[in-house]
Amino acid sequence: MGWGDLGVFGEPSKETPNLDQMASEGMLFLDFYTASPLCSPSRAALLTGRLPVRNGFYTTNAHARNAYTPQDIVGGIPDSELLLPELLKKAGYTNKIIGKWHLGHRPQFHPLKHGFDEWFGSPNCHFGPYDNRALPNIPVYRDWEMIGRYYEDFKIDLKTGEANLTQIYLQEALDFISRQQASQQPFFLYWAIDATHAPVYASKHFLGTSQRGLYGDAVREIDDSIGKILKHLQKLGISENTFVFFTSDNGAALISAPKQGGSNGRFLCGKQTTFEGGMREPAIAWWPGHIPAGGVSRQLGSVMDLFTTSLSLVGLQPPSDRQIDGIDLLPAILQGKLIDRPIFYYRGNEMMAVRVGLYKAHYWTWSNSWEEYSKGIDFCPGQNVSGVTTHMQEEHTTLPLLFHLGRDPGEKYPLSFASDEYQGVMKRISAVVQQHKETMVPGVPQLNVCDKAVMNWSPPGCEKLGKCLKPPKSDPKKCFWPH
Amino acid sequence: MGWGDLGVFGEPSKETPNLDQMASEGMLFLDFYTASPLCSPSRAALLTGRLPVRNGFYTTNAHARNAYTPQDIVGGIPDSELLLPELLKKAGYTNKIIGKWHLGHRPQFHPLKHGFDEWFGSPNCHFGPYDNRALPNIPVYRDWEMIGRYYEDFKIDLKTGEANLTQIYLQEALDFISRQQASQQPFFLYWAIDATHAPVYASKHFLGTSQRGLYGDAVREIDDSIGKILKHLQKLGISENTFVFFTSDNGAALISAPKQGGSNGRFLCGKQTTFEGGMREPAIAWWPGHIPAGGVSRQLGSVMDLFTTSLSLVGLQPPSDRQIDGIDLLPAILQGKLIDRPIFYYRGNEMMAVRVGLYKAHYWTWSNSWEEYSKGIDFCPGQNVSGVTTHMQEEHTTLPLLFHLGRDPGEKYPLSFASDEYQGVMKRISAVVQQHKETMVPGVPQLNVCDKAVMNWSPPGCEKLGKCLKPPKSDPKKCFWPH
Repeated sequence: MGWGDLGVFGEPSKETPNLDQMASEGMLFLDFYTASPLCSPSRAALLTGRLPVRNGFYTTNAHARNAYTPQDIVGGIPDSELLLPELLKKAGYTNKIIGKWHLGHRPQFHPLKHGFDEWFGSPNCHFGPYDNRALPNIPVYRDWEMIGRYYEDFKIDLKTGEANLTQIYLQEALDFISRQQASQQPFFLYWAIDATHAPVYASKHFLGTSQRGLYGDAVREIDDSIGKILKHLQKLGISENTFVFFTSDNGAALISAPKQGGSNGRFLCGKQTTFEGGMREPAIAWWPGHIPAGGVSRQLGSVMDLFTTSLSLVGLQPPSDRQIDGIDLLPAILQGKLIDRPIFYYRGNEMMAVRVGLYKAHYWTWSNSWEEYSKGIDFCPGQNVSGVTTHMQEEHTTLPLLFHLGRDPGEKYPLSFASDEYQGVMKRISAVVQQHKETMVPGVPQLNVCDKAVMNWSPPGCEKLGKCLKPPKSDPKKCFWPH
Repeated sequence: MGWGDLGVFGEPSKETPNLDQMASEGMLFLDFYTASPLCSPSRAALLTGRLPVRNGFYTTNAHARNAYTPQDIVGGIPDSELLLPELLKKAGYTNKIIGKWHLGHRPQFHPLKHGFDEWFGSPNCHFGPYDNRALPNIPVYRDWEMIGRYYEDFKIDLKTGEANLTQIYLQEALDFISRQQASQQPFFLYWAIDATHAPVYASKHFLGTSQRGLYGDAVREIDDSIGKILKHLQKLGISENTFVFFTSDNGAALISAPKQGGSNGRFLCGKQTTFEGGMREPAIAWWPGHIPAGGVSRQLGSVMDLFTTSLSLVGLQPPSDRQIDGIDLLPAILQGKLIDRPIFYYRGNEMMAVRVGLYKAHYWTWSNSWEEYSKGIDFCPGQNVSGVTTHMQEEHTTLPLLFHLGRDPGEKYPLSFASDEYQGVMKRISAVVQQHKETMVPGVPQLNVCDKAVMNWSPPGCEKLGKCLKPPKSDPKKCFWPH
């Protein structure tokens, strides 16, 4: 889902009354980011509080920077990573994940091996249907048990877009919450629904009800479900004791628009890019009686902050034996404070851009390759900013492109290199970047699609990369492919 | 000001708390349009309830379709037109215009000759400063008296953007309202401020306060002033007896962005074009105790409707001796009804597009000429939709480009001509267009810049047009210039 998919963020059909009301009862974040413009890495970042380049959910090769995380990646979240539910467990919490896990499908990566007590959902996206034995449909789990497969046991009609999955996920959520409340058990629920991910779906009751087509139907069903979850908390009398946060894992996938893709409002490009459309996310915090109703925060936030903020809520400290990138947002949420911190925009192992205050500096620009673009794959449909939405991986490390996101949220007008403003701001930003790079220790990449240890087959083109998976610092473009 | 300039419509800095609150206390229109993508014609339409092509505020030549209405047009609103204040006067109303009139500067066009009882403001935009006797600065009037000129007597600092004009206009409004309330006099106030029109300005108190730069400062001052006007009505105890409507005369002028231009959200292009960015407008109705708070309307509305709606509010019928294009919005506002009506998008005397329901058909596409575009004048910066944002005046009258504005508000994905959807919808739209064209009687054009009767000098290029000011029906492109 993208920034522009919510009525409160200007979607012209205004079809999200429940999320809009959640915002009016809680706090809206205007400058909230995911940690990666791809789903899998941003989910790893959410649960570990760490940038994907640290926790292993990244790739060093350009092919995977472009691709959706393939279903057949055999890598996953390393045991060495400490996940939020593992820590919450120590504080007596029961943890459940409902929906898409996306951090590995091999047994050692199972959510219940990484701190969750319950799981209803699937390790991957609901791609398919596959009708051969070599590539079976995505399994659906209840806890340790595989209870069926998408398309075979959990119907998704690709023609009509009809599927009951969001309703099933909703019921799972309501039941879980009721059970925890009944046993006075503190809980963490990670409700990771996927109806707006192509192939997009909605249940019969919502099909055809949106002005926006099937994608809008899916958004309406998610919105309706969130309204039901919040009302359930109120009905059970635990809303003032439950912190709820809504956000998305990446910008709307404009390659799927208009039928299966959403909106990033006036931001540039979408999913898979490090322009604002790829990484700025809708974000709402809700906690009646604690968060002032109707608040709006300009705190630069990140999904990784939910890790640290959750620990803070239960009175735990974040781990001190590793670099944690998430910060505690409670001072911003409860006291309206503004914490000075940068936002880093990564694509794979490359720091493409950084935001400091209202300024964003692009060290690299790239939408997608000419090769892809010439086949009609467009990450920025209808948008074209000369020298910015480049189809080559353009390096600007010596003279970054600088934008002021207040005056120019659409990243259309780079500041003049010769201006005093540019000189002064880049001095500040360069120091931030230098410090960041000095302390960066990348984890072992889990998503290198051409790496036999990570992938059980080689996509066409891997031979071009040869053994060059990690580009040398002296020539960072060396291994990019396609170049 | 553009659709995307309000927080409630998704401006990422959310700097319009008063307009957002006005919406939450009143009714937000999501599908409200101006009658022309240029300021002067849309103001004529607002006050007459008629399309500019009927009331004379249009041009038959392409040059003027591109240009801002020049200061030195000597034409103006014809005496034959019946203006809203003329009619309201008959119902006992006192009428005042504060700000920009823009319907002619010659004595016969003076607002007090067309129904207004009071005027504080200027006949034209605050262009300038001019420092020669041939082209004096724009005058400022109090009623019949010229009390000074912009830049000379009413300061506008083009370097800093500082000017007190919005504060002066605000004080004029508050004083007028107080006087009418004191004498129990029903009133109509047309508060036509222009701080967001280049050269953009704000008063000292607001300068530098917006994240968005000077343009944002101007928006903040307008927003603050509107808050003060609404509070004034409440303080005087007449808010439940006063209907207030906020809207704009055209989409944000993207040619002035980012320094002096606003935002049309995710809509295509801006001022001067008939894409959504040029004509979809922010619109809020406010009338405590009558309009349900927090209402959202999907009624297709137009500035021309404010004419008919205002008459309806005071119990008058619209004139029956002429075609009125505006409809009475009260059933939509007070009872939530949806009235079926088309929206016509004109540029000059050409019907460029029409909207019926959620569908919009483009009969002509044009952003601006290659000649202009090659000089860096861009009405759609950063946007480029192949075959849609054309730099030639492309005719599609036999096979219009059709868009579904719910699924595709950004006009990026024309429907396939071969689809059943296209065939069915175009049948309906063609009937609407045919009926419209059959009953269309254009007025005498007041804005033909190459016409000696309208303009006291000929802009360069007029010689190319020769005597061909009205293209023959058989060859509607004949007189377009530059072609």
